[in-house]
Amino acid sequence: MKDWIIKGNFLESESPDRFHIVENGFLPVTDGLCRGLFSVVPVQYQGLPVTDYGDRLILPGMTDLHVHAPQFAFRGLGMDMELLDWLNHYTFPEESKYGDLSYARKAYKDFVACLLHSTTTRAAIFATIHSAATLELMEQLERSGLQTLVGKVNMDRNCPEVVREPDVTTALQNTEQWICEARSRFARTKPILTPRFIPTCSDALMHGLKDLQRRYQLPVQSHLSENYGEISWVRKLSPTASCYGGAYDRFGLLGGDHACIMAHCVHSTDEELELLQRNGVYIAHSPESNMNLASGVAPISRYLELGLSVGLASDVAGGSHLSLLQAMMHAIQVSKLRWQLLDSNVRPLTLEQAFYLATAGGGAFFGKVGRFAEGYAFDAVVLDDSSLSHPQHLDLRSRLERLVYLSDDRHIVAKYVAGIKLFG
Amino acid sequence: MKDWIIKGNFLESESPDRFHIVENGFLPVTDGLCRGLFSVVPVQYQGLPVTDYGDRLILPGMTDLHVHAPQFAFRGLGMDMELLDWLNHYTFPEESKYGDLSYARKAYKDFVACLLHSTTTRAAIFATIHSAATLELMEQLERSGLQTLVGKVNMDRNCPEVVREPDVTTALQNTEQWICEARSRFARTKPILTPRFIPTCSDALMHGLKDLQRRYQLPVQSHLSENYGEISWVRKLSPTASCYGGAYDRFGLLGGDHACIMAHCVHSTDEELELLQRNGVYIAHSPESNMNLASGVAPISRYLELGLSVGLASDVAGGSHLSLLQAMMHAIQVSKLRWQLLDSNVRPLTLEQAFYLATAGGGAFFGKVGRFAEGYAFDAVVLDDSSLSHPQHLDLRSRLERLVYLSDDRHIVAKYVAGIKLFG
Repeated sequence: MKDWIIKGNFLESESPDRFHIVENGFLPVTDGLCRGLFSVVPVQYQGLPVTDYGDRLILPGMTDLHVHAPQFAFRGLGMDMELLDWLNHYTFPEESKYGDLSYARKAYKDFVACLLHSTTTRAAIFATIHSAATLELMEQLERSGLQTLVGKVNMDRNCPEVVREPDVTTALQNTEQWICEARSRFARTKPILTPRFIPTCSDALMHGLKDLQRRYQLPVQSHLSENYGEISWVRKLSPTASCYGGAYDRFGLLGGDHACIMAHCVHSTDEELELLQRNGVYIAHSPESNMNLASGVAPISRYLELGLSVGLASDVAGGSHLSLLQAMMHAIQVSKLRWQLLDSNVRPLTLEQAFYLATAGGGAFFGKVGRFAEGYAFDAVVLDDSSLSHPQHLDLRSRLERLVYLSDDRHIVAKYVAGIKLFG
Repeated sequence: MKDWIIKGNFLESESPDRFHIVENGFLPVTDGLCRGLFSVVPVQYQGLPVTDYGDRLILPGMTDLHVHAPQFAFRGLGMDMELLDWLNHYTFPEESKYGDLSYARKAYKDFVACLLHSTTTRAAIFATIHSAATLELMEQLERSGLQTLVGKVNMDRNCPEVVREPDVTTALQNTEQWICEARSRFARTKPILTPRFIPTCSDALMHGLKDLQRRYQLPVQSHLSENYGEISWVRKLSPTASCYGGAYDRFGLLGGDHACIMAHCVHSTDEELELLQRNGVYIAHSPESNMNLASGVAPISRYLELGLSVGLASDVAGGSHLSLLQAMMHAIQVSKLRWQLLDSNVRPLTLEQAFYLATAGGGAFFGKVGRFAEGYAFDAVVLDDSSLSHPQHLDLRSRLERLVYLSDDRHIVAKYVAGIKLFG
């Protein structure tokens, strides 16, 4: 990892509501860390080699806080059901195929290639219950240079036998073996505990996972308050819990002493939100998925006002697109429909807010990630919008807005993760 | 125009709720017209040359029932306002630039190139008030081979001077000259009367346009019931009209004796719907635009049940994407949010319905267009989905669904309009 200076047009989030834009700026990078954005190279960095991206846009790498790698194969398919039917009809049959390592190898290759060529530099990823296939996914991710958290999924009830772990003891043994192997083999690719969601995890399994969480100091990811049918089911399964979030909390698996991501939180009650805030849980907002599965729209601008930790997520294959630029667009769009159709007290998301979610908001789950400020990991993507011709001059904020609505993989010309260049 | 046979995998709408799919089928084309889909070449067409598209998908060309050519330049920009503010703040200043013919030439070149390389074969297009720029647009469209209706926009009140016609007499004279010149110069590119919407058109202008409509037997396009602020404004401007649609109808400009497209109809009352149905008006459903401008979601599955004529529209730049495959995705997505957030009595749109809107539904405005049945114009697009790798076999409906969610211009490999090959 060498030291150098990146030159170009930088955009980052100063706060959820404000861009920090430096046109024709300089970003010194030493030891893989950002040293801040400057209009002129500071004396102590003069002499470092300069990589000049000219008129291109340089953005912080983006964090996908929730994505299902095995579902990538059927993204854009079966978009005609709500969550619980969709799981039984499409998702579980597809995930069962990952018991076959050669299928997994092939399917995960497509996923990793697409993730690599996106603006995503960090991701929290669900695999399946299969340890071998999950390690294969981690191996491929490790080679890609991306920085990820990957979870072997746990589920031992209320699901077809083909995706159900045979019993709690086996589930926990397999999970522990997978944790140990992953920790010994990978540097950039780390295990995260992944009970799928309350309906598919017995109390005994959850207690066992809490033990593993403590023993190995692992983060946790799961699903929360996505869909009305799911929420009523959880109410029946966990009648003593005060809310859906409480059903995780009673096992100590909702943050607090560990880092935790809960996907969706579309229909979280005030009590649940308070619990999430108290426990420092990250909310993975998955706007396209919540639209495709007709789940609803989470009131994200309200969550930001409350000071909750929120990031953005593709949630493939509930979402059909891995691109977080597209997720930004979807986040803005669905927030407008929520405002118009449901509740005009919750303001639509701004471009600034959506960008914050995709960069600094979700990045914070990985530490100092998602900005170019001093000490942040150097995660960056370089975008070339010259093919999006425009008859006149556009400022940088406008150029970013157009990329959010109009860009695809062709516009991503370089990518750096944790100080290492992946391509470009 | 030669006679030949197209071979490949065909998908078309048999009805709003049903695909007609012919795998490895044959479509004889003579005199630029489809002769139906067959599994085996009928005797009378044997001997015609065959163009074999192998495993690719062949779809009817799509109709964009509502798009603003001058707004293409700022698609994906300024997505932070509702309709009336958005018009004053972004749209009118941009449209005023088309008084400069060299600006128009440059900007329209981008629009036409993008439209040409989309799945759209027919379109109903708004230009600006400027005759010269509108003729320039028509000239470019004529050369492209697309079949379009283009309107020089009329507006003479309630808008900035830079986009306002100076007086009714001049407006009508200019419009008539433009109609005559367009009719003498173009074969594929036809004029359509285009009063922008009630708020910007005086009664005198509307009466004059009705005269022109009668004299030249022209179709009409405009906007209807898009946004609540707009609707209240129309109520004030036309207090005697029974509904917003009635405000057009009292000038004879809401269908009946002429073909008519009304864009949006998001908030149409039952009375307005009845009027649209009685007068045979086509509704241009613009889902992405209605989301971006926070207008709401039109209850399209209900409109289809009522037997109304509905097609799909990009409505660039309210919508940021010219692609009607993307418009299909948006139509499905927003209908799910409407169902979830507003009214569970109106069912979400299916893939079949969205495809129908984009092909046969909107195509009917142009005559026998949007299907491959006997006597329909041969409008077709050929899509190659081989780059969307999948670990297993997919049926044709699934492959179409994936293209709706995942494809871009790279997947469009050939295009025919009215029997003529434009590329591929």
